[in-house]
Amino acid sequence: MENVIVFGHKNPDTDSICSAIVMADLQTKVRGEEVIPCRLGEINEETKFALKYFGAKEPQLIEKVEEGQTVIMVDHNEFTQTVDGIENAKIDTVIDHHRINNFKTSEPLFYYAQPVGCTSTLLYELYTLNNVKIEPQMAGLMLSAIISDTLLLKSPTTTEKDAKTVKELAKIANIDVEKYGLEMLKAGTNLDKYTEDELIRLDAKKIEKEDIKYIIAQVNTVSIPDVLKRKAKIEEEMNKEILAKGLSLFVFVITDIVNSNSEAIVLGDRVDAISKTYEIKDNIAVMPGVVSRKKQILPLVEKNI
Amino acid sequence: MENVIVFGHKNPDTDSICSAIVMADLQTKVRGEEVIPCRLGEINEETKFALKYFGAKEPQLIEKVEEGQTVIMVDHNEFTQTVDGIENAKIDTVIDHHRINNFKTSEPLFYYAQPVGCTSTLLYELYTLNNVKIEPQMAGLMLSAIISDTLLLKSPTTTEKDAKTVKELAKIANIDVEKYGLEMLKAGTNLDKYTEDELIRLDAKKIEKEDIKYIIAQVNTVSIPDVLKRKAKIEEEMNKEILAKGLSLFVFVITDIVNSNSEAIVLGDRVDAISKTYEIKDNIAVMPGVVSRKKQILPLVEKNI
Repeated sequence: MENVIVFGHKNPDTDSICSAIVMADLQTKVRGEEVIPCRLGEINEETKFALKYFGAKEPQLIEKVEEGQTVIMVDHNEFTQTVDGIENAKIDTVIDHHRINNFKTSEPLFYYAQPVGCTSTLLYELYTLNNVKIEPQMAGLMLSAIISDTLLLKSPTTTEKDAKTVKELAKIANIDVEKYGLEMLKAGTNLDKYTEDELIRLDAKKIEKEDIKYIIAQVNTVSIPDVLKRKAKIEEEMNKEILAKGLSLFVFVITDIVNSNSEAIVLGDRVDAISKTYEIKDNIAVMPGVVSRKKQILPLVEKNI
Repeated sequence: MENVIVFGHKNPDTDSICSAIVMADLQTKVRGEEVIPCRLGEINEETKFALKYFGAKEPQLIEKVEEGQTVIMVDHNEFTQTVDGIENAKIDTVIDHHRINNFKTSEPLFYYAQPVGCTSTLLYELYTLNNVKIEPQMAGLMLSAIISDTLLLKSPTTTEKDAKTVKELAKIANIDVEKYGLEMLKAGTNLDKYTEDELIRLDAKKIEKEDIKYIIAQVNTVSIPDVLKRKAKIEEEMNKEILAKGLSLFVFVITDIVNSNSEAIVLGDRVDAISKTYEIKDNIAVMPGVVSRKKQILPLVEKNI
C-alpha cells in the first residue's frame, strides 16, 4: 500500500482498534495525506460496542505487509505481537505504553512511550502538541480505549494522567463515563457466543524469552464461575495449543471486572512460574485483586521463569 | 547510588556529555530531587572546549551500575554501547535519536526518540513541554551538542527542527553560531596528542549483528593527509583490536569537517561490506560527501554485511 498504515497488536483489544483509528485521524491531519487505520484480527464484542456507539468504521483487516511498507505501530512494539513481514517494513512511528522487547529498527524513528494505562492517553497529548482539534467521535474512541485498558480507572496500571485525560475527553465527547464505561465493559463479557478454541485466543499475548515460549490470555467477565463451567473444554484447547506451538506455559486469566479479581487456569511444564506465588489447585490459581496482565501477571512470570 | 543518574554512550561525544548534563538539570527541576549527570568514558578535546566555554563541570565517571539502579539513557539505547550492569538496572527514561537495537526492558518506560540530528534538539522540546526555563549555560551546552552532531548543520542527519532549535538556543546563550561552532569543531581536530591506540577508540561504535561483530570509528580533522601519515601504526592497532575482540570488520573513518568528505581505513574479513560500494585501495576507501556514520556509513554496512 502506498499510504502509511497504522495498526495495534494481534488479537486486538479496544485500545489497539480505537488507537489505530484515532492515530490515523491525527496523522492524516498532521501529514496532509491519508493515513489508513488497520487491524490484525477480529474485533471483540466490547470494541464493537464502542465503535457502534460512536459511529466509527471498523479498520481494514490486514495479515501481512509488503517489503518497504511505511507503518505506524500503536499499543505494542514486540515483533511477536505484530503483523507478518514487519522485519522488512519501514517502521516510521511507535506510540506505546508497554515495555520494549523483541523490537528493533535499522533506521532512527519516532518512538513515544510512557508508563501510562493506555495508548490513547498519549494520543490525546499528541493532538495537543500538534495543535489539532479533537472531534467528539475521536474523543469517544480514546475514552473507550482508556476505560477498557484501565477497567474504568481501577486497574493498578492507571496513572493520574489517564484519569485527567478521561475527564477532558468526557467533556469533548459529552459522555457520562461511569454509565457508558460499565455498559461497554459488560458488552465485552458475553463469552457464550465463543467456542472454547476462540475463547483462549480472544486476547492472548504470546511471549518469547530466550528459548521459552508462553502465552498469557485474558477474558473479562461478570461471573468467573460461569466461565469455569467450561473448564474441561478450555483446558483441552489450551493443551492443544501448548502442543502445536511448543509452549512451556499457558495462563488463561479470567477477570471479574465488577469485583476486580481474577482466577487463572495454568497449564504446561512451567506452571511453577505461577505456583511459586499463587497456590494452584486443580489447575486453578485464585488471584485476589489481580486485574492487570501487564502490571501484575507478566512481571511475576518473567521473574519466575 | 540512590539518586537517579543520566548518561550518554561509551566513548562519549559532545552530545553524550552535554545532553547528560542538560537532562540532569531538567530532570532535577521536574522531579524536585537531584539527578546526577554521569559519563562512561574520557572527555574528548571538542567537548572539553565546550564545557570550558560555558563553565560547566565534567560529569562523574562511572563504569558500571548496581542492580536496581534507576537510570536515564540519553543519545543511545543499544546495550553494547552502554554501562556495564544495564541488564539489571531500572531504565526509567530514554531520550535518543538513533535506531532501536539490542535494547529491552521488563517494565514500561518513558521513551522519546525522533529521527533528528541530535539528542539535545529533543531536550530543548522537553524544557518547553515541562515549562522549565532554559538557563544560558544549558542553552550553550545544547547548542554545542547540535553543532557537534550535525557538523554545524551540514551533515545529512540535520533536520529543520535542529536548525530551528539552534536559532532559538543561540539567542538564549547569546552566541554567534558560525564563529563559536567552527572554533569548537576545530578544537576537536587536534589529534596529535593521541596515540594510535587512543585514536581508534576515541569515537568508536561497536555493533553486533547476529554473530558478526564490527566497529565503526570516526575522527574529525581539518587535514585527512595529516592523519594518514600515521596509517601504518593505526592499522597495526586496528588489527590488534580485530584479533582481541573477534571483529569481522573495522572501519576507521577520517572526516574532513571543513570540506565535508571522508576517507576510511577498512580492515577485517568482511571489507566487502564497504568495497561493494566504495573502491578500496591500499586499505583506504575514499568517500566524497560522506560525513555521517549513522546516516551514510552504518546503513551501507548493515545492508552489505
